[in-house]
Amino acid sequence: MPDTQTFGPLTLHCFGESGHSYKVALMLRLCGLDWQPRFVDFFGGAARSPEFRALNPMGECPVLVEATPEGDRVLTQSGVILFDLSRRTGRFGGDNTAAEAEVLRWMLWDNHKFSAQIGTCRFLMNFLPPEKRPGEVIGFVQARLKAAYATLNDHLAARDWVAGDGPTIADLSLCSYLYYPEPFGFDRADWPHIARWLDRIAALPGWAHPYDLMPGNPSDRAGV
Amino acid sequence: MPDTQTFGPLTLHCFGESGHSYKVALMLRLCGLDWQPRFVDFFGGAARSPEFRALNPMGECPVLVEATPEGDRVLTQSGVILFDLSRRTGRFGGDNTAAEAEVLRWMLWDNHKFSAQIGTCRFLMNFLPPEKRPGEVIGFVQARLKAAYATLNDHLAARDWVAGDGPTIADLSLCSYLYYPEPFGFDRADWPHIARWLDRIAALPGWAHPYDLMPGNPSDRAGV
Repeated sequence: MPDTQTFGPLTLHCFGESGHSYKVALMLRLCGLDWQPRFVDFFGGAARSPEFRALNPMGECPVLVEATPEGDRVLTQSGVILFDLSRRTGRFGGDNTAAEAEVLRWMLWDNHKFSAQIGTCRFLMNFLPPEKRPGEVIGFVQARLKAAYATLNDHLAARDWVAGDGPTIADLSLCSYLYYPEPFGFDRADWPHIARWLDRIAALPGWAHPYDLMPGNPSDRAGV
Repeated sequence: MPDTQTFGPLTLHCFGESGHSYKVALMLRLCGLDWQPRFVDFFGGAARSPEFRALNPMGECPVLVEATPEGDRVLTQSGVILFDLSRRTGRFGGDNTAAEAEVLRWMLWDNHKFSAQIGTCRFLMNFLPPEKRPGEVIGFVQARLKAAYATLNDHLAARDWVAGDGPTIADLSLCSYLYYPEPFGFDRADWPHIARWLDRIAALPGWAHPYDLMPGNPSDRAGV
């Protein structure tokens, strides 16, 4: 385990509905770090602004900015930020080299087959006007997700955590979208091993719901 | 640069149409390693077989198996394999710590927004029977990909390689699907910085086309 490092003031550019932001917000919270959220009005187009593109040309949340004597240190991509925070805090990185390789394996799978698809599906089903929701796309993504839920559920059948013997950033990455209340075709009752794993993560000291950790949620836009 | 390690016999479970497999096949080739491809009849359902699932429960190619005196060492997820090969060969990992973080950032983006979407789009447009191709899904994915091509093209406007001053595994990961001949809505003429970067990669000593590196290509199945 590396020496724990000190941090300069941390600002997380994020919004409540962003499951990718929640991965980082939850990590910051579970590590007991001081940080401030800065709301990005993603649905209002703020991530396409020149100011935001200067911060992250990929146009995505989260962005973590650490103020240091040498200037701002800017990190983007939730996976990059999670690995960086894990390395510097010595937390949630896996208890040995084999676990670390598993962490990376599942985080890549999460970015490819899991959170990426859930984020798309949830957006299309909840944050587009009803008349603009593309039914064929939603059906296609839900079918792919069903296979992904099965893969994760099977993996968790005989183990408590995704990689190694304790919670890691792979768990924090994979779980994020599954705590949101909006429908996207996931029902805990269908996936009992995932359901119990979500309860285990929610029991970690400091755990909080995404809408309690980050500003912005659907009720803010009700009637807009 | 770490000491270069020796390798036991390497077998890559792959198929020619798999851009994710090609990332690894190209890395093995550019590093001058000895390896053998083993054809996975993915379109025939082989990745869903119990034997393959025992090798990779995620049901995906590539899988790299190294025979060692202690038994087979099995790696899955192209990103995990690329990082492992880079670390052990001392090649394509980036020339400093900053480049290494950039490598991970772009590989995560590749898995989330780029190769993942291209692979889906190319499959739907080419490897499904014409009457089963879902037009709305193809249009949706192509629109998302247009934004991703723009992000990569802009990134390459003022630089030769994705991360750092030389080619890295981020380049090998991102480029893979773009060498395939089947249509998926990508035209080099629209993205000149990507086009020149593809030429630079193809000029690396040892470079070979996916269908020349791995068994299986659409002409094998012509008339099936």
